[in-house]
Amino acid sequence: MWRFPSYIIRGVLTRRELLSGLIAASAAASLADLSFAQDAPAVRINAARLRQSLEGLSVYGRPAGGSFADGVSRVAYSDADVAGRKYAMDLMRAAGLDPRIDTAGNITAVRQGSPSLKPILFGSHIDSVPSGGNFDGDLGSLAAIEIMHTLKDHNLTTRHPLQVVIWENEEGGLVGSRIAAGESPDPARQYNGIRLADGLRKIGGDPGKLDQARIAPGSFRCYLELHIEQGGNLDKAGIPIGVVEGIVSIDEYAVEIRGFANHAGTTPMPERHNALLAAAKLIEAVQQVVTREPGRQVGTVGHLEVYPNATNVVPGLVKHSLELRDLSPEKLARLAEQIRRQAQQIARETKTEITIRHLENDPPAMANPQIQAQIEAAAAGLGLKTMRLPSGAGHDAQMMAKLGPMGMIFVPSVGGISHSPKEFTRWPDCANGANVLLHTILRMDKA
Amino acid sequence: MWRFPSYIIRGVLTRRELLSGLIAASAAASLADLSFAQDAPAVRINAARLRQSLEGLSVYGRPAGGSFADGVSRVAYSDADVAGRKYAMDLMRAAGLDPRIDTAGNITAVRQGSPSLKPILFGSHIDSVPSGGNFDGDLGSLAAIEIMHTLKDHNLTTRHPLQVVIWENEEGGLVGSRIAAGESPDPARQYNGIRLADGLRKIGGDPGKLDQARIAPGSFRCYLELHIEQGGNLDKAGIPIGVVEGIVSIDEYAVEIRGFANHAGTTPMPERHNALLAAAKLIEAVQQVVTREPGRQVGTVGHLEVYPNATNVVPGLVKHSLELRDLSPEKLARLAEQIRRQAQQIARETKTEITIRHLENDPPAMANPQIQAQIEAAAAGLGLKTMRLPSGAGHDAQMMAKLGPMGMIFVPSVGGISHSPKEFTRWPDCANGANVLLHTILRMDKA
Repeated sequence: MWRFPSYIIRGVLTRRELLSGLIAASAAASLADLSFAQDAPAVRINAARLRQSLEGLSVYGRPAGGSFADGVSRVAYSDADVAGRKYAMDLMRAAGLDPRIDTAGNITAVRQGSPSLKPILFGSHIDSVPSGGNFDGDLGSLAAIEIMHTLKDHNLTTRHPLQVVIWENEEGGLVGSRIAAGESPDPARQYNGIRLADGLRKIGGDPGKLDQARIAPGSFRCYLELHIEQGGNLDKAGIPIGVVEGIVSIDEYAVEIRGFANHAGTTPMPERHNALLAAAKLIEAVQQVVTREPGRQVGTVGHLEVYPNATNVVPGLVKHSLELRDLSPEKLARLAEQIRRQAQQIARETKTEITIRHLENDPPAMANPQIQAQIEAAAAGLGLKTMRLPSGAGHDAQMMAKLGPMGMIFVPSVGGISHSPKEFTRWPDCANGANVLLHTILRMDKA
Repeated sequence: MWRFPSYIIRGVLTRRELLSGLIAASAAASLADLSFAQDAPAVRINAARLRQSLEGLSVYGRPAGGSFADGVSRVAYSDADVAGRKYAMDLMRAAGLDPRIDTAGNITAVRQGSPSLKPILFGSHIDSVPSGGNFDGDLGSLAAIEIMHTLKDHNLTTRHPLQVVIWENEEGGLVGSRIAAGESPDPARQYNGIRLADGLRKIGGDPGKLDQARIAPGSFRCYLELHIEQGGNLDKAGIPIGVVEGIVSIDEYAVEIRGFANHAGTTPMPERHNALLAAAKLIEAVQQVVTREPGRQVGTVGHLEVYPNATNVVPGLVKHSLELRDLSPEKLARLAEQIRRQAQQIARETKTEITIRHLENDPPAMANPQIQAQIEAAAAGLGLKTMRLPSGAGHDAQMMAKLGPMGMIFVPSVGGISHSPKEFTRWPDCANGANVLLHTILRMDKA
């Protein structure tokens, strides 16, 4: 049931903000909604408490004898993960929530709204890569809890129920959100040396009842996630808020180049069938194809193995990865076709055989346009500049985009560094991101 | 003491051969020498017996259930090596010799000549690489024994003592010949999983008394070695005999390329410090530098490691080998300098750091010009065409070149293949090589 906001009107809205609030408001919006929209800009999260939470969480998985700057190894299903999850649940309780662990191990907690309205979901993850940083996932998770705490502090209620989610094992491949989206993972697959089924049991899940962790399509108002950019675009541009247009599609290929291994001393240069020379030419071709048209597409050869890999043998076989990412699947297909054509030419030149096998494609997950507009409006209301950009990294948000409207807010990563102890987002940027998330929630609550 | 040749004159010499024999004869040559030179062209090794020996030896180290065509793994100090060595010594005994194992494990056997004259050394090795072929080393070793057998069959004697040598552990880095040349190997170093000291004891050597295996500089008339080419030059040109000009110098470098590992999805192309892209450009640069000037020089990047070597991470570090080979150390230095200059340019382009460290240099081992001429004359006497060429591979002969005059005879490897079960030298080519070695020995005995 809808309750009239109990907080005092403090905000001062410009005519434009008022208009945008009005336009964004649904046809069914009441006068009560209007007063809510006017008040919202005044509320702010507690930036000091958010920082304290992030510093508090950083202890779990910290290298022995290290400090916050030494990063964290809180890989899924580790003892550090279990301890970090307990810490997060304690923060939830302090924020007036009653956290639950679902069968997939995801932690959720609901703040009541009208039972007839769909909940607004928001959150992130707190597991890390080995030798990771203290912001990837942590910021979005603890900002979500901080928002709940802020609403409690201000005795604010919302029309829609609010639900915070901390997804388990994001770094292993969005495992918790993937289960929520209805996929069935292999319980025997190992993550960080632990079988998934054992890992889920260790963190309080129930691998035999994963169906219960599913979220029905269309059952939430929207899903929102605050995350560090993990790239250098915002930091370079000096813009505090990124409005994610979507999470890129990833095309993965396995490349195999067959030449002929032969003696490096006795095989004249023109007689060689050098698989590594062919790979070198193909790596350059990938770079050229990907960079010669405008756009944010990226192409990477990150994994490469040489056989027999001896200093005195002309390489006979090279296997390497090829990964292409962009929001547009059409562009990815076009780039791949151009790379294939170049590979044929290289194979002829080097007297090798090149096969490029398509392994898998993660389709793009587009952010909802209305939510993008609401994030921009929320940021504008806070006096923060925004930039639209794609997410080159995968996020739990892409699983939620399969089930309902999704939006993501990015904040700058200093130097674009992530998955590293050097990962850092300035504290004011953390607070800005949390405030934009808060006000996006409030706007989505009314829109 | 010089004994008058006891065999009957059978050969028919052309005027040119007679002249060349006369010219090649030393100033001290007697009339007896002349009759020897006239007779020599008539003698031939027993080609059927040579083939039988090679087929017999191939059993030791053959893959279970395999045939001759499946090659051999008779790595040094293995049980197969021990068995093969016993087989070779039995062949020596059948050839009327009394084989001895020196403290370094090399097998030698002497056929008497004048005790006042220095011996003519010839031989090769019978150890193989894992999954090697039946000709690399084996042909030179068993042809040497066959020559001794042929001389016995024909009751031929020589002025100089003849000494056949089967060097141990050639494939491990010319270990036996290296000890003979006065180097002191590390007894703890492992070869094929066995410590050198244990390996030497296993094959009948005495690692505590390696000094006794040394050959004094200047103590032999010459060292001759017949070997398969291991490259495709002779096979391609259709020429049965290669006259080795020398064994190439090898310059080895370790290349390290430091970029910055970063997320492959979130790091824009222009922001990358991609160590593998830099390596790709450098591999192409090596190819260009090595092939753009005439000559037989070769350059190889055979070993390469990528860090962290993950499909979704821009490579932050690449380590790779660089090996340059040529008879001319000056050319090698020039090529290396050109590669260094290109590396500097590539480092700037790719925003990486490239260091190229010189690991070691094996100087070239030049074949004695007089011996090269004698090999050519011996081949001409047998009606065989010759081609001068460098050896791109290392051989025990390069150790002997440090101690006295050295010559090497090559026969064609089909398709240039070696260090492979597919390694093959046609039987008539094996016989031709053995006959050229025989007649070179006889010529050197007189020259």
